[in-house]
Amino acid sequence: MNLNGWQTYLVTQESISAGRSTQAIVEAAIAGGIDVVQLREKDTSAQQRYELGRELRSITAAHDIPLIVNDRVDIALAIDADGVHVGQSDLPVSVVREQLGTDALIGCSAATVDEATAAVDAGADYLGVGAVYGTTSKKVAGTKNGIGTDRVAKIVDAVDVPVIGIGGITADNAAAVIEAGATGVAVISEITAADDPTTATQTLAASITEVDHHV
Amino acid sequence: MNLNGWQTYLVTQESISAGRSTQAIVEAAIAGGIDVVQLREKDTSAQQRYELGRELRSITAAHDIPLIVNDRVDIALAIDADGVHVGQSDLPVSVVREQLGTDALIGCSAATVDEATAAVDAGADYLGVGAVYGTTSKKVAGTKNGIGTDRVAKIVDAVDVPVIGIGGITADNAAAVIEAGATGVAVISEITAADDPTTATQTLAASITEVDHHV
Repeated sequence: MNLNGWQTYLVTQESISAGRSTQAIVEAAIAGGIDVVQLREKDTSAQQRYELGRELRSITAAHDIPLIVNDRVDIALAIDADGVHVGQSDLPVSVVREQLGTDALIGCSAATVDEATAAVDAGADYLGVGAVYGTTSKKVAGTKNGIGTDRVAKIVDAVDVPVIGIGGITADNAAAVIEAGATGVAVISEITAADDPTTATQTLAASITEVDHHV
Repeated sequence: MNLNGWQTYLVTQESISAGRSTQAIVEAAIAGGIDVVQLREKDTSAQQRYELGRELRSITAAHDIPLIVNDRVDIALAIDADGVHVGQSDLPVSVVREQLGTDALIGCSAATVDEATAAVDAGADYLGVGAVYGTTSKKVAGTKNGIGTDRVAKIVDAVDVPVIGIGGITADNAAAVIEAGATGVAVISEITAADDPTTATQTLAASITEVDHHV
């Protein structure tokens, strides 16, 4: 799988979807051209994530869109996902690799150059880097806590895997993340909380494509 | 492994250990004759459970005590545990069996005869049945919410696997659970919060052995 095409990355969180199902949000994002979907839904039970995951697998497979599961290798294996994304407090990348095998995709969150190089050394296929601008999605107060695009650029320089910026990213500020060298951007609320998730995905993708044309 | 010898079963929860480590509580319980240990620690990160689990695996293996992991198949595999215990909101028993294989031990929580027979039909090797007397460990208010020993007896009659009673069990009321037909009892606070966890384990075990002699 060519991760260099991962320009837009949706992380699911039904609690901010204004009553719409995660299935509906994912379908709308796919219609808008999303490149990859991550099942997160941290606040739900394993059973709920397993059942939702099976539906998302069906939806994403029908459109040849990769599906990544946050944190849990067992749920990823149970729903035949393409891979797992782990944070710094989840199972180590090396353990995940051992359980998933060489073909699976493993992403790891990193906020510093040290975290980024350690994750890649351990076998991560891509990095989720941030929070770039700070975010309210993960209970990080305000936008002042973001690592900023300078840090994104330093991490891009330090590793040889795709970097996906995450945290507070919108169609208005995504271009700066791509200009810093990121392959793509991951969002929750920009798509999930949008009045029209399909249009929101298209607008986000267009803001990135525009940068690409200038590079 | 002979699960018919599982008379005392410790479920770990460091938050009620009065500052003692889970490793210390488990070592004390083993000194007191505990038959099986379950790593739960629901409020900690996957990384913390993985690291604690590796230590508990080393401690329990040295004394030939089985170690079960709550909920997460991936952590169980990563630490080479003997099995997984799932609740009604965790991954289905059939999915866990597929990932762990035939030799692993799978336990499932059940509060009704229907839940119990479904779990056994799906492949559970033993049942955790309760809350027998209600419990404060799992944020179930008061002791009036327990299913009672009559329900335990009904479940024992309905299944052909060992039943472990759980929920509000102490050395004073464990005998009634065994008299209802349970193989053993699982506790958190009775051992973890005890001034002397070794003595507490011995006292609990003695209260069960006494029943056995009378049957």
